[in-house]
Amino acid sequence: MAQIAFIGLGNMGLPMAQNLLAAGHQLSVFDLVPAAIEKAVSAGAQAADSAAVAVKDAEFVISMLPAGLHVEDLYLGSDGVLASIQTGTQLVDCSTIAPETARRVSEAAESQGFDMLDAPVSGGVGGAQAGTLTFMVGGSNSGLEHTRPLLEVMGKNIFHAGGSGTGQVAKCCNNMLLGIQMIGTSEAINLGIANGLDPAVLSEIMQQSSGGNWTLNVYNPHPGIMENVPSTNDYQGGFGVDLMLKDLKLAAESALNNNVATPLGSLAKNLYNLHSKSGSGKLDFSSIIQLLKSPGS
Amino acid sequence: MAQIAFIGLGNMGLPMAQNLLAAGHQLSVFDLVPAAIEKAVSAGAQAADSAAVAVKDAEFVISMLPAGLHVEDLYLGSDGVLASIQTGTQLVDCSTIAPETARRVSEAAESQGFDMLDAPVSGGVGGAQAGTLTFMVGGSNSGLEHTRPLLEVMGKNIFHAGGSGTGQVAKCCNNMLLGIQMIGTSEAINLGIANGLDPAVLSEIMQQSSGGNWTLNVYNPHPGIMENVPSTNDYQGGFGVDLMLKDLKLAAESALNNNVATPLGSLAKNLYNLHSKSGSGKLDFSSIIQLLKSPGS
Amino acid sequence: MAQIAFIGLGNMGLPMAQNLLAAGHQLSVFDLVPAAIEKAVSAGAQAADSAAVAVKDAEFVISMLPAGLHVEDLYLGSDGVLASIQTGTQLVDCSTIAPETARRVSEAAESQGFDMLDAPVSGGVGGAQAGTLTFMVGGSNSGLEHTRPLLEVMGKNIFHAGGSGTGQVAKCCNNMLLGIQMIGTSEAINLGIANGLDPAVLSEIMQQSSGGNWTLNVYNPHPGIMENVPSTNDYQGGFGVDLMLKDLKLAAESALNNNVATPLGSLAKNLYNLHSKSGSGKLDFSSIIQLLKSPGS
Amino acid sequence: MAQIAFIGLGNMGLPMAQNLLAAGHQLSVFDLVPAAIEKAVSAGAQAADSAAVAVKDAEFVISMLPAGLHVEDLYLGSDGVLASIQTGTQLVDCSTIAPETARRVSEAAESQGFDMLDAPVSGGVGGAQAGTLTFMVGGSNSGLEHTRPLLEVMGKNIFHAGGSGTGQVAKCCNNMLLGIQMIGTSEAINLGIANGLDPAVLSEIMQQSSGGNWTLNVYNPHPGIMENVPSTNDYQGGFGVDLMLKDLKLAAESALNNNVATPLGSLAKNLYNLHSKSGSGKLDFSSIIQLLKSPGS
Repeated sequence: MAQIAFIGLGNMGLPMAQNLLAAGHQLSVFDLVPAAIEKAVSAGAQAADSAAVAVKDAEFVISMLPAGLHVEDLYLGSDGVLASIQTGTQLVDCSTIAPETARRVSEAAESQGFDMLDAPVSGGVGGAQAGTLTFMVGGSNSGLEHTRPLLEVMGKNIFHAGGSGTGQVAKCCNNMLLGIQMIGTSEAINLGIANGLDPAVLSEIMQQSSGGNWTLNVYNPHPGIMENVPSTNDYQGGFGVDLMLKDLKLAAESALNNNVATPLGSLAKNLYNLHSKSGSGKLDFSSIIQLLKSPGS
Repeated sequence: MAQIAFIGLGNMGLPMAQNLLAAGHQLSVFDLVPAAIEKAVSAGAQAADSAAVAVKDAEFVISMLPAGLHVEDLYLGSDGVLASIQTGTQLVDCSTIAPETARRVSEAAESQGFDMLDAPVSGGVGGAQAGTLTFMVGGSNSGLEHTRPLLEVMGKNIFHAGGSGTGQVAKCCNNMLLGIQMIGTSEAINLGIANGLDPAVLSEIMQQSSGGNWTLNVYNPHPGIMENVPSTNDYQGGFGVDLMLKDLKLAAESALNNNVATPLGSLAKNLYNLHSKSGSGKLDFSSIIQLLKSPGS
Repeated sequence: MAQIAFIGLGNMGLPMAQNLLAAGHQLSVFDLVPAAIEKAVSAGAQAADSAAVAVKDAEFVISMLPAGLHVEDLYLGSDGVLASIQTGTQLVDCSTIAPETARRVSEAAESQGFDMLDAPVSGGVGGAQAGTLTFMVGGSNSGLEHTRPLLEVMGKNIFHAGGSGTGQVAKCCNNMLLGIQMIGTSEAINLGIANGLDPAVLSEIMQQSSGGNWTLNVYNPHPGIMENVPSTNDYQGGFGVDLMLKDLKLAAESALNNNVATPLGSLAKNLYNLHSKSGSGKLDFSSIIQLLKSPGS
Repeated sequence: MAQIAFIGLGNMGLPMAQNLLAAGHQLSVFDLVPAAIEKAVSAGAQAADSAAVAVKDAEFVISMLPAGLHVEDLYLGSDGVLASIQTGTQLVDCSTIAPETARRVSEAAESQGFDMLDAPVSGGVGGAQAGTLTFMVGGSNSGLEHTRPLLEVMGKNIFHAGGSGTGQVAKCCNNMLLGIQMIGTSEAINLGIANGLDPAVLSEIMQQSSGGNWTLNVYNPHPGIMENVPSTNDYQGGFGVDLMLKDLKLAAESALNNNVATPLGSLAKNLYNLHSKSGSGKLDFSSIIQLLKSPGS
């Protein structure tokens, strides 16, 4: 069993930590919110007064934080992880942040002799609870193999995208494509409805044809077509509009930095921006179909 | 065995007719291009001097024409199909045309007591030759069941979308979504490459994640990732840019007529328009990745 | 003084007719709404029981109708204008309709020996009342010179765009550009505000620089910068969102028919479509800045 | 007469320096390219071996550099301006850079007691040579009044946008709007041509109507309509595609950082990106009309 420091116990981090505890690992945890720490403690974790204390004797540091600046602060800050860990500690950041930031932190870690993985996830809170997350991992082969047993406790699919930062790039590319497909699928369904088609029939036709995609398989944006998806539950739960917007902004930032043309990705970002501004930021991202639909439909 | 009039023997129509002949049906054929008629005759068809002659004694009329005005002319013209057929003839138009046009022609047919299906296909020339087309059918249940044995000779998947015109709507919605996904997939792959990812690795990750779609399954736009796809063959063969542009324009027209917002569909149409104007109209539609990529990549 | 038949007495048509009456012309008028006829009669017009009656002895027929189908019906219908007028009557349609429809009606008129102008206007209800409309005229030189004295009663600027239909094309192009500029100006002002700029200062800088355009000159979309514009009056009055959407749809239709790439025009249409769907169809078109702005700004 | 250090003698900086010299000011100059220094020296400037040497005794430091990182390096570097100047030196950066960077450098200067203006220009190389540039200035009133006599030697219009960084914001907003208007104007002209209009007639109509904008006034993108504009000179000279792309990227970056929706601005950036990738980066930015036009027109 491994000695793990787990930093960041939010909606995603807490169930990930709970799964590691349930698998028998020893966790020292820290979060800025005391209540989050308490929940982890009641599942068997040891509370730490600071990130620096939590990581002191850890074999693995796993972090799950909201944004790049938190990750930079955690690892590179004056009282941060790199200043506090012992030789040989494996670093694993599961936050979704800009590839550039991930590379910068990894390079700092490597310059001090540590191996660091960027390992952002997809699968949402449901996947975190069920231990069925997908990990997109950037970093060394040896680091990944060393960490794999822990990732397999938290997730089902583990992809190795390449060197440092590529896990973030893969997630960023994937989620930009997901956002485009969710809007495109919504447009197609709305166009069909306006022409008198049954959205369930149209969805099945497209799913089995060249329009097929993940949203048609398991996450149809039109209410009532699938059970147990957010669209059928008033767009509650799932992956929020503001989280999709965050990922589309990371993609847009990377496209700017690398001079890549992403016309549909840019427009998808702007449409999710309008949707969020209209007050739908906390709804599931499939609710974009509501922004697009005619009032009467 | 059925007596069939087959009108329109182009790249798609000819192999469809050949499959019907190979299955033992009797075909009377017409096309404006004599050489096309000759090819069908050498496969066993009977040549007709005009569409009116071809359809005179047919149990089924099947048409496969380039655009709505040809369909209107064929069926509604003064010397057209409706003026020439006998009672009980089943009409089946496989052309890809505007839903509004399909409905207009169907209504004219029905007002004269005929049953008409709109049954556009997907699957390309390859699918037409192999008899593995997908049919998206609008019209009556009885008409579809009556025609099904013939469709099963030419295709593999047969979807019933609803009443008259809905076959066209389903195809239009599906292909708009396909165009969006091809561009979105291309943008994601280009963004990954610019960030140092291997496009094959990224494609596999997205295919198995929430970015998964038909293009990643069987039609990757980046050369060298899949065998036997147009991208690996200098974008030759497949489904041409100008044909995708035609379908995106049909979707845009329907969106205009029905007051539906399709921001990504509209932008996809404009991007394929720019790609066609730049001289790529005859390349496969996956070549849109070239319009978007950086010069050096 | 001329004998004029004026058909269509809506928000625009009525004040145009009133200006012609005030200038001493004799008007025979028709509208489907009796109350509209009464208003014109109280200003000195003669009521007619039908369009056919109104146009019987007219030297000029002027029409101002909502859409192309009304224009086709008025001129080409079995009891329509062309069937009712005397030799030498000059036809002038001021409606905003598709160029294709305008050409079709003009051609029918010309084939029967009549001269017809398409003469859509800009300037809104205010311009119609003040007699300061802009006319964009398609048709013959002689027809325009013959009609010019009447147009000068109703308007201030009279442009000759070319042959039949070009008046509609010019208006369609102009208004597509106007819609793009209104959105672009709104985006620029919002971006400035989010960066701490005073929108009035920024507007003045852009107006006098290379970003200068008509909206910055006389129709600023941000409230409080200009007096007597809709933005300063809760977006009441002015040129409605749904009217701008109608014009952007005419431009999109013409772009489709002529295979022209209009990526910004298409996106502008979709954004006005979203704005209309959100319930703002009756507000002035400068209210698009509200769709785009952040909730807090 | 003032003692000025002028850093950055490129296409813009050199003629600006020459105008200051011609007005009798004393310039100490530095550039990384010796040939550029020589040209300034032959106009009366004094060459310096480094920026640090150039600025040592200056009353004013004026910089004109390609990008933000050069500006940060010049002012904040270990051997940079802030480390080398004497008390009371007025700092004026005329480069076009991100507002965030301008604010960061200004704050560093102010924290050391210096007054700094961000004063990006528009007007191109022609305006720099003629001394008719437009300055958009961010910073203190007193700093601007102190510097105004020098700005008036180099330019004609001087706008005060607000505090530090707002000069950059104003330019960024203006140029985003300019890019949008150039594309929108091109789309409208192309649509008119495809419908048979004379582009010169259409341009004049729109210029005098609600579609009017700066490009129609002085910079028409269609060849042959105006003399002495790049479009009439094979799109040579003027303001390059890659410079417009740079400004649109600065706007996109600022929109991302401030969570502002700029759908047309984003699409304009992507279209200029495609245009640049197709090999047109060095042409004038009005050449975007070529990307959009049909092959035959």
